[in-house]
Amino acid sequence: MAKEVTNRAENYSQWYNDLVVKADLAEQSAVRGCMVIKPYGYAIWEKMQSVLDGMFKKTGVQNAYFPLFIPKSFFSREAEHVAGFAKECAVVTHHRLMNDPDGKGVVVDPAAKLEEELIVRPTSETIIWSTYKNWITSWRDLPILCNQWCNVVRWEMRTRLFLRTAEFLWQEGHTAHATSDEAQAKAEEMVQVYADFARNTMALPVIVGHKSPNERFAGALDTLTIEAMMQDGKALQAGTSHFLGQNFAKSFDVTYQNKEGKQEYVWATSWGVSTRLMGALIMAHGDDNGLVLPPALAPIQVVMVPIFKTEEGHQAILDKMYEIKKALEAQGHSVKVDDRDTLRPGFKFAEWELKGVPVRLAMGERDLANGTVEVARRDTLTKETVAAEGVDQHIHELLDAIQQNIYTKALNFRDANIRKCDSWEEFKVEIQKGGFLLCHWDGTPETEQAIKDETKATIRCIPVDSCVCEEEGTCIYTGKPSHRRVVFAISY
Amino acid sequence: MAKEVTNRAENYSQWYNDLVVKADLAEQSAVRGCMVIKPYGYAIWEKMQSVLDGMFKKTGVQNAYFPLFIPKSFFSREAEHVAGFAKECAVVTHHRLMNDPDGKGVVVDPAAKLEEELIVRPTSETIIWSTYKNWITSWRDLPILCNQWCNVVRWEMRTRLFLRTAEFLWQEGHTAHATSDEAQAKAEEMVQVYADFARNTMALPVIVGHKSPNERFAGALDTLTIEAMMQDGKALQAGTSHFLGQNFAKSFDVTYQNKEGKQEYVWATSWGVSTRLMGALIMAHGDDNGLVLPPALAPIQVVMVPIFKTEEGHQAILDKMYEIKKALEAQGHSVKVDDRDTLRPGFKFAEWELKGVPVRLAMGERDLANGTVEVARRDTLTKETVAAEGVDQHIHELLDAIQQNIYTKALNFRDANIRKCDSWEEFKVEIQKGGFLLCHWDGTPETEQAIKDETKATIRCIPVDSCVCEEEGTCIYTGKPSHRRVVFAISY
Repeated sequence: MAKEVTNRAENYSQWYNDLVVKADLAEQSAVRGCMVIKPYGYAIWEKMQSVLDGMFKKTGVQNAYFPLFIPKSFFSREAEHVAGFAKECAVVTHHRLMNDPDGKGVVVDPAAKLEEELIVRPTSETIIWSTYKNWITSWRDLPILCNQWCNVVRWEMRTRLFLRTAEFLWQEGHTAHATSDEAQAKAEEMVQVYADFARNTMALPVIVGHKSPNERFAGALDTLTIEAMMQDGKALQAGTSHFLGQNFAKSFDVTYQNKEGKQEYVWATSWGVSTRLMGALIMAHGDDNGLVLPPALAPIQVVMVPIFKTEEGHQAILDKMYEIKKALEAQGHSVKVDDRDTLRPGFKFAEWELKGVPVRLAMGERDLANGTVEVARRDTLTKETVAAEGVDQHIHELLDAIQQNIYTKALNFRDANIRKCDSWEEFKVEIQKGGFLLCHWDGTPETEQAIKDETKATIRCIPVDSCVCEEEGTCIYTGKPSHRRVVFAISY
Repeated sequence: MAKEVTNRAENYSQWYNDLVVKADLAEQSAVRGCMVIKPYGYAIWEKMQSVLDGMFKKTGVQNAYFPLFIPKSFFSREAEHVAGFAKECAVVTHHRLMNDPDGKGVVVDPAAKLEEELIVRPTSETIIWSTYKNWITSWRDLPILCNQWCNVVRWEMRTRLFLRTAEFLWQEGHTAHATSDEAQAKAEEMVQVYADFARNTMALPVIVGHKSPNERFAGALDTLTIEAMMQDGKALQAGTSHFLGQNFAKSFDVTYQNKEGKQEYVWATSWGVSTRLMGALIMAHGDDNGLVLPPALAPIQVVMVPIFKTEEGHQAILDKMYEIKKALEAQGHSVKVDDRDTLRPGFKFAEWELKGVPVRLAMGERDLANGTVEVARRDTLTKETVAAEGVDQHIHELLDAIQQNIYTKALNFRDANIRKCDSWEEFKVEIQKGGFLLCHWDGTPETEQAIKDETKATIRCIPVDSCVCEEEGTCIYTGKPSHRRVVFAISY
C-alpha cells in the first residue's frame, strides 16, 4: 500500500489528519491557519453545497452577496456581538504596497492608511442588517430571506483542517420578519433542513435541540443546533440556526410600518453550516483503511479496475467496463475507470479505499470469459462475484443500500454511546469514556459552567425531538429539581 | 410607471447605473467601493457560474479552494507581477480587536500585530504556485487543471457597480503543464470557452484576440482576450486567458522530472472572468425601458400577469395560468405568476420590463372566454394574441428565437460600428465617435502608447479569428509597414 493511515485506536487525532491529507481532501497552506481545499475535497463540498442550496431554495430563500469587509464601527454597535467572539479577526489597516525604498521587495505604504479599519467578516449580521435598513420600509417588504455562500475569517489560535481554520467556507442565511413567531418558525424550519441534510445526505445521525444560554450565539435569544457524535465519542456541532429577536434591528435601526401604520422593529434569524461538515463526514464514517463516503456525497461513486495479463485481454475488459460505465451514468451515477498503466491493481484498490469510493468493480480475463464481475463494497469491505449482465441495476440498488447502511451503522454507534447518568460521581467517570450523557440539570448557567470547569463537558443541547428526555429528576450537580434531561458531552 | 430610467441618449452612464440599481441587481454598500449583489442580480450570476462551470469541467478542469490571504513576501518574488498591478490592495496588519480602554466601542489591539503582513488576494498566482510546488514532482503529476470561484480585492480608486469594484467575484483557473505547447493550447482552449459562453449564453458577440504587450497581464508571455462592444461604442474586456510561460514556476521553484529523468520548470496558464460580465450583459442589451435579458440567463423567463374585474374571473385566470406554468416548467423553463393583489397590471408590466424578463403573458376575462392569451416579447416590445392551447410550445420556441434575436441585434450593432481607418487625422476624429477601428500598427509599444496618450484609445486585441485583418499596409501613426490590422477602441 502506498500511503499508510494511522489506526484510529492508536491515535485518533493523527488518523483524522492522515485521512484529510492522504486522501487529498485538504492541506495546510503557506498562510497560518488557512487551508487549501484540494480538488477531491472540494468536489465533496460542492455536492454538499448543491444539495443544501436546493433545499434552501425550496423554502423560499434566495442567494445574494454582501461585502467581505465590515467597518470597525459596526462591531461597536452590537455590544453583545463584540463581547461574544468577534475579537479575534483579521484587520485591514492599509490599502497599498510600495517598492521598498531600500530596493528589495515590497513594503506597506504608510501613506495609505485607512481612515477607519476594516474587519474581514467573521460573520455578516452587522453588514447585512445595515443593508436591510435600506430595503425595508413597510410590511410589504417582509419577509426577506437571503443566504450567501462565502468565506469568513476568525483568527483561531489552534487550528485543525476543516474543524477549525482561520478562514473557512460556509453559508450564512439572514432573514427578516414582521413578527417574532414568524422568525422563530423560520429558525426552527432551517435547523430541520440541516437535520434532514445531515441524516439523508451525509448519513449522519444528529440530535436537534436548543443551546443552553452559555452556548448560545452572541446576540441570539435562542440557538438551535444539530449535534453529531464522532467515533471517539466526542460531540461535533454541525450546524446552528439562531433566533435573534430584534437585537440587530435595534442596533441598526431597522423598522417597518405594519398594516396598522405603526413603526415596529424587525425580527431576525441567522443560520449556517460550514466546511466543518467535511470534518464531521470524515470522522463519523471513516475507518482504518481511509474514508468511507456516503454515495450521495461521493465525487466518484463507482470505480472500475481492470486486471489483465495480455494486451488483448486488457482491451476487451476495458470495452466491457466502458459499457457498464455508460449504463451507470445513464442512471445518474458518477463512474471512473482507472486505466492507469503504471500502477498495479492492488495499489489502485488501496488508493480508492483510502478515498472512500463506495463501490469498486474489478474484472479479470477469467471474469470476462465467465461473464462475471467482482463487486466490492467500501462500507463493509465485502466482495461478491455477480453476473456482468444487469450489474448496473445491481449497483444502482447497492448504492442505496450502502447509503442506508452507513447511516444505520453511525446511528447504532451513537445510540450505543448515549447513556443516562444520574450522579455526579458517576458523571465524572463516565464523561471521560466519551459519548453523550443524558442528565438532569438545574437550568442555571452557573451549574453548567461549574461542570465544564471540572470536566470540560458542556451541554450540547436540550433536545427538541427526543421525548425520552422529558421526565422529572434532580440535577446531577446541585440536586435541584429538573423537568428534563439534557445532552452533556465533550465536544470538538 | 414606478421607477424612471434615464434615457441612454441623454446620459448613458446614468442609464447604466439606473438599470443596476432600479432593476435590483446591485447597490453600493457601506464599505467604500464594495457592492451588495442583490438576489435578482445574484440569480443571474449563479446562472453564469453554472453554465461556465459545466463548460470548464468538460475540459477536465476541477474546482479547488486556495487561501484568501497571501503573505506579503510572495509579492516580492514575482517582480513583474508587482510592477504590474498588485500595489493597490487590502493589507491585513493585525489579528485582534479589543474594547476601547476609554470604554466606547472597539479598537485594534496594538499587541496583535502580525509578523508579516497579509494581502487580501488581488489574484492568486503566487499562493497557488507556492502550493503547486508541493504537488508536482514528476511528469506523472501533470497537467494540473484547477479553478476556483472566489472573491478578490483590488483597491480601485474610482469604482462602478459590476464594472470596477474593490471587491468582486470571479473564477480563476490555474493550470500547470509539462510543455510550452500544451500550456499555450490550454490558454487558447479557455479563451474559446469564454467566447462560446459569451456568444451562446450571454448573446454577446465578441472578438477573440491577443493583447498587445502593453496590455498584457503582468507576468504573462501572451494574453488572449474576448472583447465586446457596448451600446455607447466603447469596448469592454470580458475575459482573459494568459500563457504565463515558466515565470511563476521559476519564482516559486516548481520543477518536475521529465520522462528522461531531467528536472524542468513547469509551464503555466491562468484565465478568469468576473462579475464584470454582469456589466457587459446590462450594457450590451438593455434599452430605455430597462434590462433585456437573454433567456439563457434570465432568472425568470416568463412572467404572467392576470387582468381581471371580478374575483371569480381572477381565480379562473389564475387556474389557467398555473396550468400553463406547469407545462412550461416541465420543459425546463422558469416561470412566475405575478399574483400580487395590491398592484395594477400596468405597474407590473413596467416592473417586469425593467427587470428584463424575456416573455410576458397577460390574460384577461375576455381572453379566457376566447381561449387566447397575450404574449409580449421584451426584446422587440411587440405583442401578439395567440391560442392558449399549445401556448407552452409556442413560448418554448419563442424563447429560442429571442435568445437568437438578442445576439443578432448586438452583432449587427457591433458590425455597423466596426470600420477601417487608414490615416491618423481620420483616426483622431473617428475614435471619438465610438466603435472599433481596424487599423494598421507598426507593432511597437511606443506607438501604442503615443496613440493612447493622444486619444485614450488602446489596442483592444490583435484578432485571431477574423482573417479580414490580415493584409499589408502602413501604421496609421508612424507610416511604418504593417502586416495586419488590429482593433483600436476606447474601453471601460
